Amino acid sequence: MADTNALETLIQSLRRLPGVGVKSAQRMAFHLLQHDRAGAQTLSMALAHAAQAVQHCERCHTFTEAQVCSTCLDTRRDASKLCVVETPADQSAVERTGAYKGLYFVLMGKLSPLDGIGPHDIGLKKLFDRALDGTVLEVILATNFTAEGEATAHVISEGLKARGLHLTRLARGVPVGSELEYVDLGTIAHALVDRR
Amino acid sequence: MADTNALETLIQSLRRLPGVGVKSAQRMAFHLLQHDRAGAQTLSMALAHAAQAVQHCERCHTFTEAQVCSTCLDTRRDASKLCVVETPADQSAVERTGAYKGLYFVLMGKLSPLDGIGPHDIGLKKLFDRALDGTVLEVILATNFTAEGEATAHVISEGLKARGLHLTRLARGVPVGSELEYVDLGTIAHALVDRR
Repeated sequence: MADTNALETLIQSLRRLPGVGVKSAQRMAFHLLQHDRAGAQTLSMALAHAAQAVQHCERCHTFTEAQVCSTCLDTRRDASKLCVVETPADQSAVERTGAYKGLYFVLMGKLSPLDGIGPHDIGLKKLFDRALDGTVLEVILATNFTAEGEATAHVISEGLKARGLHLTRLARGVPVGSELEYVDLGTIAHALVDRR
Repeated sequence: MADTNALETLIQSLRRLPGVGVKSAQRMAFHLLQHDRAGAQTLSMALAHAAQAVQHCERCHTFTEAQVCSTCLDTRRDASKLCVVETPADQSAVERTGAYKGLYFVLMGKLSPLDGIGPHDIGLKKLFDRALDGTVLEVILATNFTAEGEATAHVISEGLKARGLHLTRLARGVPVGSELEYVDLGTIAHALVDRR
């Protein structure tokens, strides 16, 4: 694509983004250089700033620019509940429900032996220390309902059971607004078992 | 997604990339900050450098860091042939066939009245000046075989006909409705040979 090293370097750099192949990277580079140079500058500065400023919250491990994130510092929250999620996006989804007022622990990943991600990589030690610090009474496992998420939840519950904590898992069931006919059978089976 | 302005700004900036919505932007930001900070720095520098260094070739209008791109400066090329393409990616596709040894003019877009892109926006005046500079004998219209690409080819041929130039269009070996960038090289090569 033309004869510029700057452009070639940009395309190669864009390919480091997840889900971006060579065609998408070319299209992105073309768009930025042809139609949105201001966007390229903005993105450049945002990347440099975030890579330098964003760190992990000491208590819940989520992204923050401070030592402890504002959620952990919020004294109106119920410190006896700890909700374990995989990513900040999952945390954000739980937050938006408005149905949870406790604290979080963000794993920043999930156990995935095939990708070489073990207990140490997702900071399970840190989670156990946090869950056993004396204030937490209930740990809500809100990892995803995928194979890796389920395995992660299993390993956490194995590590924490018999420690006097109340361990719960998000309920499995039929999504709100869906029609039974289109829900997969495993979900319906779980919803039947967990009926209340 | 967590409580950091740097992260929020990064997500908003990533959304300026074509084809990137809020979920993809969150995923990209998460990936870069959690797994590839070096990638974030690299991309930041590549963006800043490209936005500052990349300009348009004076002769063919493609991206280059010099005043005139290396393709236009290549004296082994047949200066009597001018191939008109929409984007540098299209030019690159034609180049890779190895079946064309002339020069190029890169429109950097296509006529698209619905998007408010008219003849002035894609530099048709510049193309006409270039095509009529005395050295060009044949203009090969290699715009995409989409509605906009065909319209663009039509407008160019209307503007150049009766000027003593040999005007050709890539043969319809290229499947109608597809874009050059995604066509296999053999088809493009055949279309070049069968140009009319």
